[in-house]
Amino acid sequence: MSTSISSVQDTIVALATSPGVNGAIAVIRLSGPEAIGIVNTVFKGKDLAQQASHTLHFGTIRDGEQIIDEVLVSLFVAPHSYTKEDVVEISTHNSKYIIEQVIMLLMRHGARAAKAGEFTLRAFLNGGMDLSQAEAVADLIASGSAASHQIAMQQMRGGFSSQLKKLREDLVHFASLIELELDFSEEDVEFANRDQLKALIHHIYTVVGKLIQSFEQGNVLKNGVPVVIAGKPNVGKSTLLNALLNEDRAIVSEIAGTTRDTIEDEINIHGVTFRFIDTAGIRETEDVVEAKGVERTREKMKQARLIIYLFDPTQDHIADVQKQIAEVQDLAIPFVTIINKSDLIDESRRAEYAALQPLYISAKQQQGIEELKEELLRQVNLANRGADDVMVTNIRHVEALQRTQETLEKVLYGIDNPVTSDFLAMDIRQALYHLGEITGAVTTDDLLDNIFSKFCIGK
Amino acid sequence: MSTSISSVQDTIVALATSPGVNGAIAVIRLSGPEAIGIVNTVFKGKDLAQQASHTLHFGTIRDGEQIIDEVLVSLFVAPHSYTKEDVVEISTHNSKYIIEQVIMLLMRHGARAAKAGEFTLRAFLNGGMDLSQAEAVADLIASGSAASHQIAMQQMRGGFSSQLKKLREDLVHFASLIELELDFSEEDVEFANRDQLKALIHHIYTVVGKLIQSFEQGNVLKNGVPVVIAGKPNVGKSTLLNALLNEDRAIVSEIAGTTRDTIEDEINIHGVTFRFIDTAGIRETEDVVEAKGVERTREKMKQARLIIYLFDPTQDHIADVQKQIAEVQDLAIPFVTIINKSDLIDESRRAEYAALQPLYISAKQQQGIEELKEELLRQVNLANRGADDVMVTNIRHVEALQRTQETLEKVLYGIDNPVTSDFLAMDIRQALYHLGEITGAVTTDDLLDNIFSKFCIGK
Repeated sequence: MSTSISSVQDTIVALATSPGVNGAIAVIRLSGPEAIGIVNTVFKGKDLAQQASHTLHFGTIRDGEQIIDEVLVSLFVAPHSYTKEDVVEISTHNSKYIIEQVIMLLMRHGARAAKAGEFTLRAFLNGGMDLSQAEAVADLIASGSAASHQIAMQQMRGGFSSQLKKLREDLVHFASLIELELDFSEEDVEFANRDQLKALIHHIYTVVGKLIQSFEQGNVLKNGVPVVIAGKPNVGKSTLLNALLNEDRAIVSEIAGTTRDTIEDEINIHGVTFRFIDTAGIRETEDVVEAKGVERTREKMKQARLIIYLFDPTQDHIADVQKQIAEVQDLAIPFVTIINKSDLIDESRRAEYAALQPLYISAKQQQGIEELKEELLRQVNLANRGADDVMVTNIRHVEALQRTQETLEKVLYGIDNPVTSDFLAMDIRQALYHLGEITGAVTTDDLLDNIFSKFCIGK
Repeated sequence: MSTSISSVQDTIVALATSPGVNGAIAVIRLSGPEAIGIVNTVFKGKDLAQQASHTLHFGTIRDGEQIIDEVLVSLFVAPHSYTKEDVVEISTHNSKYIIEQVIMLLMRHGARAAKAGEFTLRAFLNGGMDLSQAEAVADLIASGSAASHQIAMQQMRGGFSSQLKKLREDLVHFASLIELELDFSEEDVEFANRDQLKALIHHIYTVVGKLIQSFEQGNVLKNGVPVVIAGKPNVGKSTLLNALLNEDRAIVSEIAGTTRDTIEDEINIHGVTFRFIDTAGIRETEDVVEAKGVERTREKMKQARLIIYLFDPTQDHIADVQKQIAEVQDLAIPFVTIINKSDLIDESRRAEYAALQPLYISAKQQQGIEELKEELLRQVNLANRGADDVMVTNIRHVEALQRTQETLEKVLYGIDNPVTSDFLAMDIRQALYHLGEITGAVTTDDLLDNIFSKFCIGK
């Protein structure tokens, strides 16, 4: 892609909707200076060149005299479009044959097949969005829970960008002042107030630090909270998983045609995805080589952000339970102790377990499931997150923020020590560079290639 | 569905594009009196109720304060829409989560999940298209070749319907005249000229007969020409299939993102699909129980519309070949005799085969493949078909046509024999009924249910 990044003079075309046989319509998208002209040559209906932006036109797409399809054409005149170029969307019947024929026809008339992410790349290059917003588009499409959706939406709408932009602007101001000092270097003047600069750098350092810290939580929200359900065989692990899953499925299956592929081991609780790490295979081998099996279970548990320790009071001895809980505690991972089959024990037994501060449930009777869900949310501390808190979920962003932080430390050192203005200015410029990498104020072709090639074609 | 067929007062919603992860956008479609009102309550942007038909509007879909997505809304004000009702199409980012959230939100605000084919059913009920046109929409979406596409397109655009409509109108005219005679039955008058009626019935009978005849060809075009490649093992059957397939694939694979699932045994030649019937399993068993194997191969061959008999002149003896060809000829199915590995034999050998009138090819060297393709098209006699010839491809239509034909025979009998006007009128009404079944001038809820339930949701 790198060779074409700076050449956005041509007109690109791609299928913008999912391929597949279960749809009624498909949308073919064109962007570029010839988009309207190319479609006009194959469209029989109104003269599209004479129509206003944001209008819809019914007509036929023809290859000579042959009608390929009856279509609806959407017109977006530059700069009032996603890419800021002229954009035409052709809504066809959802036939693979028709889609192929229309795209081939448009290509014969001068359009070029779009590369992955090329529409969004153009939106970025034409100033329609910054880089972190473009990246959020991909995150938004991939998001499968309310939490990951919310983070991506906020990022796409520029919440993160505007925060960074403000920091950069303040820093640019000081960089200019210090560079002004360089012009007057023989006169030993200080245009940039060192105390104010120090306060600003401290402020930026704090904000950047918070953003870096948000990454772990943001990442958990984006990819799901990894959870292990631990416990002996037959304590009801699968029943519990099903009890949690069933409710989740019921919500999704209401809407015919949009039902998600069943993901056996993901549960959405109040918008947060919990991803269950399978330790089933390990459990089975425990009988054979017990020591090794336990070790491998522990390894799996270490990947978890949360452990649910489940036991069956009708089977497990309290001493045994205490021993196992102690082992889990050693991992220093948040855990919830759950007593299953609570309907089968009386009050006196409950007193026995009081010290463990367990949650009582009956997976089979669907009792205590709601309380468990609330406890899971509480444990990962995501419930009381502010709706407008910016969260970093992108590894590229967190790396740039870390580089920013390192450079800011140099700047702070430079302020407090006898460092010349030119070195100070260089460090500030470096911090600006790293901050700019996130929003794309600073880019390279390789970086863009790397980001946009991960998009799907048509986006 | 039957219960709701006559109640189109509610507003329906469905995903109109294919579900799947490889798209950039998805389109959610609403139709009904509240379509604009419902979307207006969750759309933040312009007031949609104040906007003109065929306009596009950017904004956000919100559930309270929560932004679900940035969307483009297409507005179609009744009757200027597919369904002739108010239609709104919401173009969202292609995220399953977003699609589910938006549809659920719209349903909470009063929309109902659309049933399969319900948008097209409404288009039919509201007079936007007749029944055979509605059926053609499904055929169009399913069509995978130029030929099947062309037939469906012609049917959708009303070519078939207008032909039937004309016949029906002429017949209705006579039916009225004959029914008028009933009012004056005591006076023994003839308003309907019997000779003219007879000529008309003959004409309709001929047209209906041609339409019935077109079914076999139409069906072949719609579903592909069934072909068997016969010949001894190792004469190059697979190499030939690949030689034909490779070119076909090259065309399709040019367009990223739309590449069809590979169908190993279908070849598209100049727009006509040839579907190869696999006899591989049978060939393998020939050694074991030869007589039975040959019998089963013959059974398979009988399903073919065309047989390619392939032999290898470097292996097969002329006497053997002649015997096999004679057997194939017995089936009375068009066949093409092909000599493979033509590059390995000289002119004197060719003289030996002259009587067989074979086609010389080398599947391996890709020689003679184009000539073979032309021969295949010639054999199925589809190449010189007129572009505007109406073809019947729907079994329901051909059955109605057959019933029409039977009734027309009764009418003809009635004209030539002393049958009273009221019986004649009844037979003509019956013929009108059967003709009307095709276009939906006559329908039942069961019929509609049967047709539209086969559509996908969102269509």
